[in-house]
Amino acid sequence: MFHRFEVVKTCPQTKARAGVLTTPHGIVPTPVFLPVGSQGTIKTLTPDELKYLGVTILLGNAYHLYLRPGIEVIEQSGGLHRFISWDGPILTDSGGYQLFSLASLCRVSEQGVVFTSHIDGSEHFLTPELMIQLQERLGSDIMMTFDQCPYGETVTEVREAMERTHRWAQRCQRSQQRKDQALYGIVQGGIFPQLRQESAKLLASLGFPGYAIGGLSLGETKQVMLTILAETTAYLPEDKPRYLMGVGSPEDLLECVALGIDIFDSALPTRIARNGALLTPQGRVNIRNSCWRMQDRAPDWGCNCYTCRTFSAAYLHHLFKCEELLAYRLATIHNLHFIIRLMEQIREAILSGTFTSFKDEFLAPYHSTSEEVRLTQKRKWLASRSIT
Amino acid sequence: MFHRFEVVKTCPQTKARAGVLTTPHGIVPTPVFLPVGSQGTIKTLTPDELKYLGVTILLGNAYHLYLRPGIEVIEQSGGLHRFISWDGPILTDSGGYQLFSLASLCRVSEQGVVFTSHIDGSEHFLTPELMIQLQERLGSDIMMTFDQCPYGETVTEVREAMERTHRWAQRCQRSQQRKDQALYGIVQGGIFPQLRQESAKLLASLGFPGYAIGGLSLGETKQVMLTILAETTAYLPEDKPRYLMGVGSPEDLLECVALGIDIFDSALPTRIARNGALLTPQGRVNIRNSCWRMQDRAPDWGCNCYTCRTFSAAYLHHLFKCEELLAYRLATIHNLHFIIRLMEQIREAILSGTFTSFKDEFLAPYHSTSEEVRLTQKRKWLASRSIT
Repeated sequence: MFHRFEVVKTCPQTKARAGVLTTPHGIVPTPVFLPVGSQGTIKTLTPDELKYLGVTILLGNAYHLYLRPGIEVIEQSGGLHRFISWDGPILTDSGGYQLFSLASLCRVSEQGVVFTSHIDGSEHFLTPELMIQLQERLGSDIMMTFDQCPYGETVTEVREAMERTHRWAQRCQRSQQRKDQALYGIVQGGIFPQLRQESAKLLASLGFPGYAIGGLSLGETKQVMLTILAETTAYLPEDKPRYLMGVGSPEDLLECVALGIDIFDSALPTRIARNGALLTPQGRVNIRNSCWRMQDRAPDWGCNCYTCRTFSAAYLHHLFKCEELLAYRLATIHNLHFIIRLMEQIREAILSGTFTSFKDEFLAPYHSTSEEVRLTQKRKWLASRSIT
Repeated sequence: MFHRFEVVKTCPQTKARAGVLTTPHGIVPTPVFLPVGSQGTIKTLTPDELKYLGVTILLGNAYHLYLRPGIEVIEQSGGLHRFISWDGPILTDSGGYQLFSLASLCRVSEQGVVFTSHIDGSEHFLTPELMIQLQERLGSDIMMTFDQCPYGETVTEVREAMERTHRWAQRCQRSQQRKDQALYGIVQGGIFPQLRQESAKLLASLGFPGYAIGGLSLGETKQVMLTILAETTAYLPEDKPRYLMGVGSPEDLLECVALGIDIFDSALPTRIARNGALLTPQGRVNIRNSCWRMQDRAPDWGCNCYTCRTFSAAYLHHLFKCEELLAYRLATIHNLHFIIRLMEQIREAILSGTFTSFKDEFLAPYHSTSEEVRLTQKRKWLASRSIT
């Protein structure tokens, strides 16, 4: 077997679990966070730096790579691993979500999606079968099914997209050729518990080696997200990995691990880094703030990352003020280190049976971004990505 | 003595020489190229990477650092070395040239220069004495005198600026307090051989530990630059280092080493890298060109830099097309490696008595940027830097 997942230990108080995910390109201890490298690069960093940071698995995006540089370029290079020079595991999202949010003039039929590229306006037609073929040519370790995001918010609209997602999931499954790649199914169903339950049950009956939960963290409140998540994981098999797509703030990672999630990806830690927001045990701080101008100490006391070991907050502040490219890189290193280390600590806590106390101790001093600010930012970001 | 310069070997056919420059922060084999870190960073790179690339000495710019982050910030951090986390030698340009080209509303008097910051429009007054004080607070290994760039191109205008530069050089010298920093004088005189000769002689009589040649590579033809250079070095002491400011293309480095230059700085290799231009033994190539799209081989055959060892030309092409930040970093690594390695080869050739044949062999396959293109680019770049 190329792929295997074992739950090593479960938390007695929550649904948190520590596991080991085996892939053709290496072993991934879970829970795990995947940095986002949609275009074949974790912005600003080299593969060497990712290894050094303790990153075990990366996310790529078939939709992005299909449009640029084109799958044929990557295939000719010997696949995605060789193209980006990363010999560890890679999970590729099919890019259903990106397609619906970035491309213009999307027309969905049962057969597939006709859309216009957000880059050059060229027209394309993608089907579930083609999406699997593209991911097989990329050669990722884990592929995702092609899902349809709901257009509207009514239960009828969400159900329609969900049912199509189920049919597409089966078509993806049937079209899979390569046996060395694992194909995960994606649960949809919006914010309707009944639909989520139905979706989880149906996908589980199809026997995927792993299950993703899509369509969350898209502007709903945190409470709604956690409720829906609990409703969903309850119907997914215990012995298969569960992947929550698009979630990556420290507080969300802790809450969602507690609900039984094993795999996460999010551009959040790296995106906010490029805006100067650094993750610290007290919450996010913005290094562009003038209070840092004269601070001759590490940006984050006690942090052991390259940035904090090497430079002062004043220097980082200066680089951001000058819009120097090194600024974005140093902040990215810090935030990824913070998240990777958090995941390691979470796993250690689960293994030693102290997850709930670790969670409480982490969250006590951690000043979460307020719900209002969070939603405003999220909606603004989502809006900025849609091309009208 | 904190500072020492020894000529180890001279070329029998040309004026090229190999030397050793000793500074408080380390030893610098010459001829040497200094990457430009005006704002306290070699764009995109960390100090670790610079060390790994074989960089032995960096250039900082007192004018830039005075405006941002402010000398007091750097001083409080324990000086420029600690602020940027570079423990090797640093040479700081006073920034006379940058002041005259970047600042608006410059008013020069015998006393000094009143100018308006190109960043926030604030008004400042800088004198030769203050420029030395600033560089002493920065704590660089080598400081530069404050020179005045000529406003016009007539011999009278150039002479006036040159004579003021001489008076300012003496004021700089008299105001120097710290004995652990070396202060180099700057020869001016435009493209007039007579003025250059006069300037070199006068500065030499003042007994500086090193001499810079300013005001060249500013739009004059290559032939004029080389003629003026030969006229100047002839009147500078043999036993002191000679620094040609602002020159850094491979072909210019070879020609100017042959005329007896020991030290160079230029933003060219790193600036063109960020535009996708890579230096190769055949000349510059632009990786953005579509011919690279499917090239599954190193951007530069036979190059041993991290970029060429790790990634294909197709990948680099892809990163540039996507405007990914990693692109600028990987190209910068390659170009700096190319230039540093070239300087090492030049030195080895001088030491082994084969400089002229090395020079000929390097230049034979090297397709230099045509004089016309070069001048157009240079003038465009100079124009883009002046604020009107």
